[in-house]
Amino acid sequence: MRNIKLLIEYDGTRYRGWQRLGDSDKTIQGKIEHVVSEMAKTPIEIVGSGRTDAGAHAKGQVANFKTSSDMELLAMQDYLNTYLPRDIIVKDVKEVPERFHARYNATGKKYSYYLWNSPVPSAFYRHYSYYVAEELNLDRMNEACQKLMGTHDFIGFSALKKSKKSTVRTIENINIQKEGDSLHFTFIGDGFLYKMIRIIMGSLLEIGLGEKEPNYIDEIFQSNRRSDAGMTVPAQGLFLEEVYYGKK
Amino acid sequence: MRNIKLLIEYDGTRYRGWQRLGDSDKTIQGKIEHVVSEMAKTPIEIVGSGRTDAGAHAKGQVANFKTSSDMELLAMQDYLNTYLPRDIIVKDVKEVPERFHARYNATGKKYSYYLWNSPVPSAFYRHYSYYVAEELNLDRMNEACQKLMGTHDFIGFSALKKSKKSTVRTIENINIQKEGDSLHFTFIGDGFLYKMIRIIMGSLLEIGLGEKEPNYIDEIFQSNRRSDAGMTVPAQGLFLEEVYYGKK
Repeated sequence: MRNIKLLIEYDGTRYRGWQRLGDSDKTIQGKIEHVVSEMAKTPIEIVGSGRTDAGAHAKGQVANFKTSSDMELLAMQDYLNTYLPRDIIVKDVKEVPERFHARYNATGKKYSYYLWNSPVPSAFYRHYSYYVAEELNLDRMNEACQKLMGTHDFIGFSALKKSKKSTVRTIENINIQKEGDSLHFTFIGDGFLYKMIRIIMGSLLEIGLGEKEPNYIDEIFQSNRRSDAGMTVPAQGLFLEEVYYGKK
Repeated sequence: MRNIKLLIEYDGTRYRGWQRLGDSDKTIQGKIEHVVSEMAKTPIEIVGSGRTDAGAHAKGQVANFKTSSDMELLAMQDYLNTYLPRDIIVKDVKEVPERFHARYNATGKKYSYYLWNSPVPSAFYRHYSYYVAEELNLDRMNEACQKLMGTHDFIGFSALKKSKKSTVRTIENINIQKEGDSLHFTFIGDGFLYKMIRIIMGSLLEIGLGEKEPNYIDEIFQSNRRSDAGMTVPAQGLFLEEVYYGKK
């Protein structure tokens, strides 16, 4: 059996997220499995590096699947891009060692979150950012980001009810870049809990709007209670940029 | 009567172009006239700086309308952005002298055209660019742009059947910028004939692909025949960036 690794970009606007549900036609995984199975003429399951929420996007999702097909890699990529909808693109196809597993082997991820921060919304970024009309204090938000970086128990910033597994994660870097009316947040870490980035962004927003002080972050780490953290911002501003395997 | 000038951004993907048709609901002008008329509680016609094609976009379309309403400008903008669909945004509302006419007074326009030039298409720019997989020679395209600049009869680069009006136009500048896989063409001129930029782009593409030499442009200017020029590229890559009034 060959082990095939896919690098995938998708505009998640029309989908119910990455993970296949009953109705496979409305998830990214379902769409790709359908076309891969047609290609291989046998049912195939693919393994993604992790889920993305309904409406969230990816520029560098990674998935793998096993197949006995002897099709050439470029021919596979052509087949997939021909039969997949135009909002899902296979950017690269590689053959990898049999032991490679897109989820278990991932050592880290990079995400982006975009805010559109202007007195008027944007016609073009409405599905690719979260609109905030009010002015934001970036210095305060940057100060709060310093507190988020490092190794912490992020249970308070997650939508997990309870967890038997560790909820300790390391955020190696958070960066804020302003380009015109667009605010681009990047997060690099060894892993992110369910809805963690969207809840961090909601908490950072309260600080940027002046409703909370930067030490609000410390308070959430102290209480570890979801109810103390900010709102979950919409998924449409979230992009999975890159999945790391081995060193970042 | 007050004369109100609107600065408008729209994602043209869902629309049949700017100009109102029988079914007003599928044109930008129709959508805006509907909401402006509701606001003023009387039917109002708006005048745009010019048409844009079905699927083409605008970051700086200008329109004006007359009204006896005494509503404040910011309240008008709020009303319009509340009731217009989210892919049409009023970026600014100004009161202008009674004689101002968005079409007759326009002295020039700036357009962009975007190509997505990569071995794989883009999930995100599929409605905002034209996809070209093959490599393009930018030096040759730049050489051709030099020939297009200046004052010429552009009838060969237009979809006009015949014209009683002058088809002489001046292109003051054409610029090509490469950012990653995106090629961004900007055109500044005193006016552009029907489909002129899309036909210029189709002709530039043939030169960039090596099918024609840069002096292909001279040949089209000499024959003045539409059939000698390149294809009309799709409208989805076209953006009306700015309308100039007075000096550029």
